[in-house]
Amino acid sequence: MNLILLFAEDFVAPGRVLLQGRRLRHVLEVHRAAVGDVLVVGLEGGMIGNGRVLLLDGAGLEMAVELGTNPPPPLPVTLVLALPRPKMLKRILITATSMGVKTIYLINSFRVEKSFWKSPLLSTEKLAEPLVLGLEQARDTVLPRVHLRPLFRPFVEDELPAICAGTTALLAHPAGNAPCPRVSPGAVTLAIGPEGGFIPYEAERLQGCGFTAVTLGERILRVEAAVPVLLSRLAPL
Amino acid sequence: MNLILLFAEDFVAPGRVLLQGRRLRHVLEVHRAAVGDVLVVGLEGGMIGNGRVLLLDGAGLEMAVELGTNPPPPLPVTLVLALPRPKMLKRILITATSMGVKTIYLINSFRVEKSFWKSPLLSTEKLAEPLVLGLEQARDTVLPRVHLRPLFRPFVEDELPAICAGTTALLAHPAGNAPCPRVSPGAVTLAIGPEGGFIPYEAERLQGCGFTAVTLGERILRVEAAVPVLLSRLAPL
Repeated sequence: MNLILLFAEDFVAPGRVLLQGRRLRHVLEVHRAAVGDVLVVGLEGGMIGNGRVLLLDGAGLEMAVELGTNPPPPLPVTLVLALPRPKMLKRILITATSMGVKTIYLINSFRVEKSFWKSPLLSTEKLAEPLVLGLEQARDTVLPRVHLRPLFRPFVEDELPAICAGTTALLAHPAGNAPCPRVSPGAVTLAIGPEGGFIPYEAERLQGCGFTAVTLGERILRVEAAVPVLLSRLAPL
Repeated sequence: MNLILLFAEDFVAPGRVLLQGRRLRHVLEVHRAAVGDVLVVGLEGGMIGNGRVLLLDGAGLEMAVELGTNPPPPLPVTLVLALPRPKMLKRILITATSMGVKTIYLINSFRVEKSFWKSPLLSTEKLAEPLVLGLEQARDTVLPRVHLRPLFRPFVEDELPAICAGTTALLAHPAGNAPCPRVSPGAVTLAIGPEGGFIPYEAERLQGCGFTAVTLGERILRVEAAVPVLLSRLAPL
């Protein structure tokens, strides 16, 4: 937690917050802060700044908050990701959020196990947890929006053309014949398949939407490694 | 498992292997192979090729093996990594191995919890598991060598100068003032600290060995995301 993310409901008075639960425990156990210490904070969707500890005990953390710095710029990449296995999904969401992705579509694919769509992790409340962790890691404040699209074809036909309009649309595909760019081509829509890859029909539909199949070379990476590698390559300097 | 890694002891006759245990289960349950199918195999430390299924049932998988292709080239990066939390270590080893790292030093740092060094994961046998998974993922055959160095100072004073001789030595450090290169500078020794980073004394000792502190920007990444990002940036095209 390199930044404590604050929400509007944490404010007990203007410029003053009271925290309990996970953030309180983290400040007690990891930061080991004391009254007078200054911690990095940020307001969800807003600016970052400092929180000076006014009171800290097992019951709560009270801070005087001053905000004045913009969060880091977002990564201009929209991620279209075949829904990963739930335990992987959480880590991938933390990583993508910490790298600055702001729009994520979790989509279906032939190789996505149907049970993944029933994971309790996909509830709005549970999905927010890794996103908050990612923001806290990267000192960002702007939550990504995660969209669930459990039907491949309607998504690709009805929504995807508008999503990738005006962007460089790239499909990460081990069988792709162009290398993935190493410099940012500007705004990108990046599609990443499941373990085992999109099936040919799916890859063709994506290519029909204007996606170019790109590869990272002969080494096939797990999705949880491919995501940071691809995002890093497509990030502006 | 994009490649089935074979070991000398799997051969029951020249060009013929018999597999049981984890690899047998994977071929039955994930590949769902049948007699006559051809699977990608590779000999540990040697070449890759094909295995034609001769017999397959719950008791064993017998294949006729032909090897003739070299594994992918190694990544010319020696990784010097502050020992991560055990559950993270496993994933990081899979990732680093799948990306082609062949030499890994796990070192101590002030912010490495002492208990991490007592993890059963650090036994030679247990350490091999994620390495094998990484090779199978990336269709590689050459196991990385993992060296445990639980004392920071003797490692840095007695061993590190020879390790980084002739390489570009980079220290991934959020406080670094040079951006991490985006193209391969050739052979690299890459040092990555623990969550929270190397303490100033440690960073200074590494810089004294010739390491340049480089940063990935204002977003601080978890080690498990920083490793693939850094390796990807330093990989030859």
